This record gives sequence, C-alpha cells and structure tokens, in this order.
Amino acid sequence: MTGGELKLLGTWASPFAVRVKLALYFKGISNENIEEDLRNKSDLLVSSNPVHKKVPVLIHNGKPICVSQIIVQYIDEAFVGTGPSLLPADPYERAIARFWAAYVDDKLLASWLQTFRGKTEEEKAEGVKQTLVAAEHLEAAFKECSKGKPFFGGDSVGYLDVTLGCLVAWVHAGEKLYGFNPFDATKCPLLNAWVERFGALDAAKAVLPDTDRLVDYAKMRQAEAAAAASNSNN
Amino acid sequence: MTGGELKLLGTWASPFAVRVKLALYFKGISNENIEEDLRNKSDLLVSSNPVHKKVPVLIHNGKPICVSQIIVQYIDEAFVGTGPSLLPADPYERAIARFWAAYVDDKLLASWLQTFRGKTEEEKAEGVKQTLVAAEHLEAAFKECSKGKPFFGGDSVGYLDVTLGCLVAWVHAGEKLYGFNPFDATKCPLLNAWVERFGALDAAKAVLPDTDRLVDYAKMRQAEAAAAASNSNN
Repeated sequence: MTGGELKLLGTWASPFAVRVKLALYFKGISNENIEEDLRNKSDLLVSSNPVHKKVPVLIHNGKPICVSQIIVQYIDEAFVGTGPSLLPADPYERAIARFWAAYVDDKLLASWLQTFRGKTEEEKAEGVKQTLVAAEHLEAAFKECSKGKPFFGGDSVGYLDVTLGCLVAWVHAGEKLYGFNPFDATKCPLLNAWVERFGALDAAKAVLPDTDRLVDYAKMRQAEAAAAASNSNN
Repeated sequence: MTGGELKLLGTWASPFAVRVKLALYFKGISNENIEEDLRNKSDLLVSSNPVHKKVPVLIHNGKPICVSQIIVQYIDEAFVGTGPSLLPADPYERAIARFWAAYVDDKLLASWLQTFRGKTEEEKAEGVKQTLVAAEHLEAAFKECSKGKPFFGGDSVGYLDVTLGCLVAWVHAGEKLYGFNPFDATKCPLLNAWVERFGALDAAKAVLPDTDRLVDYAKMRQAEAAAAASNSNN
C-alpha cells in the first residue's frame, strides 16, 4: 500500500488542497500536483470524486481518496514510518486532535466565510461574532494540546497544525482585504504567535500560496461575482 | 488507557448516542449509561463537552470524548484486541469507510431531517430529493464496501454498519410517521435488505429504541413545536 505513484488534484488557492500538500511535505513524500480548473473540471477529477466532484483528491496507485482531513489521516496511516507521525500515538490525544480538526472546518471556517459571504450586514456581523468565539475555543485548544510547546503537536507539527496551518495564508490575506484577523494578538496571543511560527517553517514557505496573489485572486472573484449579480438584475 | 471506568452521557432517542452504544456492544465493552435531560443538561454534560454541550459524551477514566464518529474511532483504537476491530485494517479501506461515514451525517441525515423540518413544502420536497440522491450513493457504497457479503464491514459489522445502523429505528419510525423510507426496496434493494439484516442482530435488539416509542416521542415533540409556534403568533 505504501510507496508508488501519488497524484494530487487541487488548485493553488484551495486551503483544503494546501492542507494535503502540507501533510505530504511534513511526511517527506513526493507527489505530482495536478492543477484543476474548477470551471472546467477534468474527467479525472469527476471520475475520482463522483460524489462531491471537489478538490482535493489524492490518487495513490490509481485509487482515489477524497476530503482533506480524511486524506491527511490516510497519508499518516498508509505511510507509517515515512517521516514523522502527524496524529498523536495515544488514542485519547488522537480523539482530541480529531475533535478540534472537525471544529476548524465546521465552526471556525464556516463562520469565517460568513464574515464576507453573508448576504446582509447582520449576517456578516454574526459571522464575525461566531468566528471570534471559535478562535477563542481554538486558543484554549492550543494551550491544551501544545502543553507549552511551540505546536499543537508539541515540539513538532502534528495533525492539528496541518489542519489549521493551511489557513495561515488566508489569515494574512483576510487581514489585508477586510482588516479582520480571527487570531488577533490581544484575544488570541498563543494562536497569533503560532501563525507567525507556522508561517516561518520551510513547509509553509514551500507550500502556502503568496498572500498578495491570494488578495488579487479574491478581488478578481469579488469583481466577477458583482458583475454576475449586476447582470442578473438587468 | 484501556479498561477502566466508562460512562456514556446520552439520551435514549439520540441516534448519535445509539451509535456509541452499538460500538460498545459490538466490541463487548460494558459501560454505565447516564440518561440526560436535554432541557436541563447536567453539570457533568456541560463540563465534559463545554464547546458543543451535546450528547453523546463518553467519559473514560474521567476523560471526556465528544462527537459520535470520533467516539467510535476512539473506542476502536483504545480497546484494540477487545472484541472485533470496527474500522478496516487497510488504510485505503479505512479512508473509504471514513468518507462514507462523514457522508451519512453531512448529506443523508442533513437531507433527511429537511424532509420534515423544512420550513416550506418546497424545502421539504428538496429534502426528499436530496435524501434519495444520498441513499442512491450509499447503495453503491454498500456494494463497494461489502463486496457481496452481508455487511459494510464484510462478513461482520464494521464502522459503517455502526454509523448507519444507529438510524435503523428511525427508518422504521419515519416510515410510520411520514410514509417515507430512504432505503426503499425498489431503489435501494441492497440497503433495504441490510436494514432488515442489521435490525435482526442481537446488538440492534439490545440497543436500538423501540419504533413505536420513537413514533410517540416524535408526535409529542411535533405537538410541542406546534403549540410553541401558535403561542409565538399570539
């Protein structure tokens, strides 16, 4: 099951694809990256992920694995002994890591998206409020998991560092675009420092997208959405 | 980490608590069940799951684990060698099982709830449509995972049987209440037969709630909701 051909279908701007790239980097596993055009999805993407038709998909020796958190766990389990383990060895600590990883996507990210995708100003304000609640919980989670060490995984990065780390470039882009950082130094000093620490890692420099490119991309997408809304009102 | 005191905070009607009870039953692990009153949550529940304040919570030697799918994986990993493994041994098959388990909660269950909780008839109809799409995908998943054998896990039950099996009593209750069964024999013959097969297991008889009790409970909750809506219109 280990070794062999690894293809990752993703896009440079997808934090979920970046999550998988980070996991592969930390494990020291090389792969082929295939950049998808989400407006014109490849037959390989559609046939590999027929249920969701979304990136990322990791194809290992012809077998597709979908959904970023499931892919990262797969990489850790299929490549045992290759590079460091991402998930903790202890079952309880593993459960805690899975709990917070789910929380990142289900609560933090969902609320954060609402801060700029909300249909009304009230929805956006509620998004900000809920994002700050989620960030506060994650600040406590960092304290619990890191036990005073630099990463969620302790002395070295682990599953939660990968799960949240894929969002670090968007923290910076979001601050430039909207002046909003969920991990503000005043309210979340530990996570604010962690964002800097994670961003300084070789893996982050190699894998995370450039902040200015993300900002330009987000502005382009906003302009397109505004044009589409304007056209649909005609 | 294994052995020791196990308390499960749940309610008899919560399919997520039933999911954990099924896992414990299949592994042959005994535990104390603590029935929660969700209108008056215990201090133990709130302090054990301060983030979501929801059942189920499994407390193992004083340490709480939350979110049913994470609890089931914890049980499998913390009690290796006690009873059968629920997750497959092969990393790829494990990823597939996790993918479909997430799909059960995120797509099937979310759509199914919309079939009766939708605010308008259109929303309810969309719920039915999406539930049938999800059921069709799960029918194919059963074929893929079971490989012609009686359960998702093959010859014996596994993670996906537990994940979906906790809904079997609601399949019957939903049919009595609304005349709707997502796993209709015509469209989902394999899952329809699996529902019967799973329901006939000793574990199901011991753990799943009684259909008529569920039907009465659902009617009572509907009457309460209608009364509340009527009061709020005054």
